[in-house]
Amino acid sequence: MTVEKVCIIGSGNWGSAIAKIVGENTARHSSVFERTVRQWVFEEQVDGKKLTEIINEQHENVKYLKGVALPENVVAVPDVVESCKGASLVVFVLPHQFVRGVCEKMKGHLAPNARAISLIKGLEITPAGTRLFNEEIQRILDIPCAALSGANIADEVAREKFCESTVGCASVADGELWFKLFDTPYFRINVIQDAVGVQLTGALKNVVAVGAGISDGLGYGSNTKAAIIRRGLMEMRKFGQTFFGDQIQTETFFESCGVADLITTCSAGRNRKVSEAFARTGKPIEQLEAELLNGQKLQGTLTAQEVHEFLSARNLVDEFPLFRTVYKIIYEGLDCQAIVRDI
Amino acid sequence: MTVEKVCIIGSGNWGSAIAKIVGENTARHSSVFERTVRQWVFEEQVDGKKLTEIINEQHENVKYLKGVALPENVVAVPDVVESCKGASLVVFVLPHQFVRGVCEKMKGHLAPNARAISLIKGLEITPAGTRLFNEEIQRILDIPCAALSGANIADEVAREKFCESTVGCASVADGELWFKLFDTPYFRINVIQDAVGVQLTGALKNVVAVGAGISDGLGYGSNTKAAIIRRGLMEMRKFGQTFFGDQIQTETFFESCGVADLITTCSAGRNRKVSEAFARTGKPIEQLEAELLNGQKLQGTLTAQEVHEFLSARNLVDEFPLFRTVYKIIYEGLDCQAIVRDI
Repeated sequence: MTVEKVCIIGSGNWGSAIAKIVGENTARHSSVFERTVRQWVFEEQVDGKKLTEIINEQHENVKYLKGVALPENVVAVPDVVESCKGASLVVFVLPHQFVRGVCEKMKGHLAPNARAISLIKGLEITPAGTRLFNEEIQRILDIPCAALSGANIADEVAREKFCESTVGCASVADGELWFKLFDTPYFRINVIQDAVGVQLTGALKNVVAVGAGISDGLGYGSNTKAAIIRRGLMEMRKFGQTFFGDQIQTETFFESCGVADLITTCSAGRNRKVSEAFARTGKPIEQLEAELLNGQKLQGTLTAQEVHEFLSARNLVDEFPLFRTVYKIIYEGLDCQAIVRDI
Repeated sequence: MTVEKVCIIGSGNWGSAIAKIVGENTARHSSVFERTVRQWVFEEQVDGKKLTEIINEQHENVKYLKGVALPENVVAVPDVVESCKGASLVVFVLPHQFVRGVCEKMKGHLAPNARAISLIKGLEITPAGTRLFNEEIQRILDIPCAALSGANIADEVAREKFCESTVGCASVADGELWFKLFDTPYFRINVIQDAVGVQLTGALKNVVAVGAGISDGLGYGSNTKAAIIRRGLMEMRKFGQTFFGDQIQTETFFESCGVADLITTCSAGRNRKVSEAFARTGKPIEQLEAELLNGQKLQGTLTAQEVHEFLSARNLVDEFPLFRTVYKIIYEGLDCQAIVRDI
C-alpha cells in the first residue's frame, strides 16, 4: 500500500495551526501518510532572516503563530511548485484572492490520484451567482476537493483547547483519509457529505453576527440575541435550500460548521464586536474598522452587501428579512431598532 | 360566534409576565376572546394586604413582577374554582408540584369545549419512565393540552425585550387560537405540532448548561463552549428520538424552544453560573446553592441525576456521553476536565 504524501498550501495563522495538527497526525498514522509534510510558505523577511528558514530551524512560525511549537516533520518550502510536487493530499489554507493564481502554478505537478481539501473561508457571491472555492480548485486542477470548516479560532486550536470541526466530502473513502489527517483528541472531526453546506455556513454566519452585535449594542439581553441567532440559522438554511437545493443537507446545520460556528461567531469575534460598537456609538463602519481592526475590512458587512445584491438580482430580498435588515442598517441608514422590529 | 373565555392558573414571575401579554391580546382581539381574563393567584399577605387585592387595585404584582403594569382586564381571583369556572382556554403556569392537586379541584368546572396549554417547566423523569405535564393535564381534566416554551426570561419578556417562543399543539385550529392569545410584536410565537419536543428541550437544556458552565469555569473559550452546546443539542435530540420516536420532530430543535433556549441558557442563567463556580472553586453544589441561590435547588444537576437513573435502568448511559459526564462530575467526583475529554 502506498502512503499518502501531504502538502499544505498556506502558512498564515490558521495554516500554521493546521500544520501543527497535520504534522502530528502524519507522524501518528505512519502506515497511511508519509511522515514529512511540505508546507508552502510565502517568503518574507523577519528580523533580517527568511521566514522559511526560521520555521525549518526553530520549528515555529514566529510571524503568524508565535509561541507554538510546530512538529519537526513539517518542512517550510518557499516555492509553491516545489512544495506540491508529487503530493497526493493537498490542504488549501490561504486567503481566497490567491487561490486561482496558486492553482494555475500547481497544475501538472500533483500525483495522478491527488485529492484536495479547502479550508478557505467564505465563498464568492456576486449578482451573477455564487462560486465555491472547492469547486474552483476542482475545476482548475481537475481533482476532487472537499471542504473543512467549524467553530475554530486558530489560536485556541493551536493551544489545544477542545473544539470540533466539520469535513464535507462527497467520497466516503476520502472522508476517512481526511478524518485521519485532521482528527485529534482536542480537534474532533465529523465527516459529512455536504461540502457546499460546510462552505456556505462559513460565509453567511458573519452576516448574522452583525445582527447579533447590533442587538448587543442596543442593550438587548441574551433572549433577544438567541432569537436573532436562531432566525439567522433559519435564513442560512433557506438560502442554501433555495440556491443549492438537494446539495445542502439539513443535518449540516447541526454540525460544528453550522450551529456551533454560528454561536461562537455571535458571542466572540470581530463581526459582533464592531457591530456592537456601531449600534452603540453611531460611528461609520469604516471609522470603526480603522479604530478597532487597524483598517482591516469587516467580513460580515461585505458579505451582507454581496448577499443583498445577489438577492436583489433575483427579487428575493424580502424572503430573508434578517439579511435584509442587517444590510439596510449598515448601508442605508435604517435605524438599529429595526433589528428586532423588521425581522 | 362565541368568544373564548380565558383563565390563567398561576401568578409567579413567569405567570405575571404572561398575564400581561394575554391581557393585552384578549383586549386586542375582541372578536375572538372575552376581554376579561381571570388569573388564579395563590393568596398571600404583602405588607398586611392581600396580594389579589393589590393586583386588582394597583394592577401590579408587587411580589413577583415589581414595576410592571398589568392590564386592567386581568382580574386576580384567590379561589381556583372561581377563576376557571366556564373557561374555554386555560393557561397553566405554576410550579410542577402543584399541577395535579389544582387540576383535581378544577374538574367539572370548565366549559365543555375547553382546551389548555402548559407553560410548566420540565417533565418528570424517573427510572420507570417520563411523564409530560401537558399529558397529566389532559389525563386529569380530559381536555386537549398544548405546550409553550422558548428562550424567555420572564423579566425581559415583561419589559418587552424582543424574543420568540414556541407553541407545540397537535390541532392546527387550536394552534391558531394560541397564536392569537400569545403573539405580540415583542414576543413572537411559532406554532408547531410537536408538544413533546417543546417540553423535553425545556428540561434537558439545563443539563447541557451545567456542562457549559464547567467549561467556562475551566477557562475554555467560546469554541469549546459552542462544541458542548452542539453536542448537547444532539444528545437532546437523540434522547427524544430514542424514547419518543415519531412524536419528536427534528424541526423542533431549530425552534425557539430548542436551539435558542439552549443558547440563552448556556450563556446566561443560574445553571451555567453555579456550575462555573463549581469548576472554579471545587465547592460542593449544595454550598454553592446556599451561597448563590439562597438555598434554592439547581434544576440542571437534579435533571442530570434523573436522566442518569432513567438511562441506567435501560443500560443506555454510554449512548449519551455528555449527559453521563455531567452526572459523573457532579455526583461521582470525576475531574472537571472530563467535560472535554470524555464526551
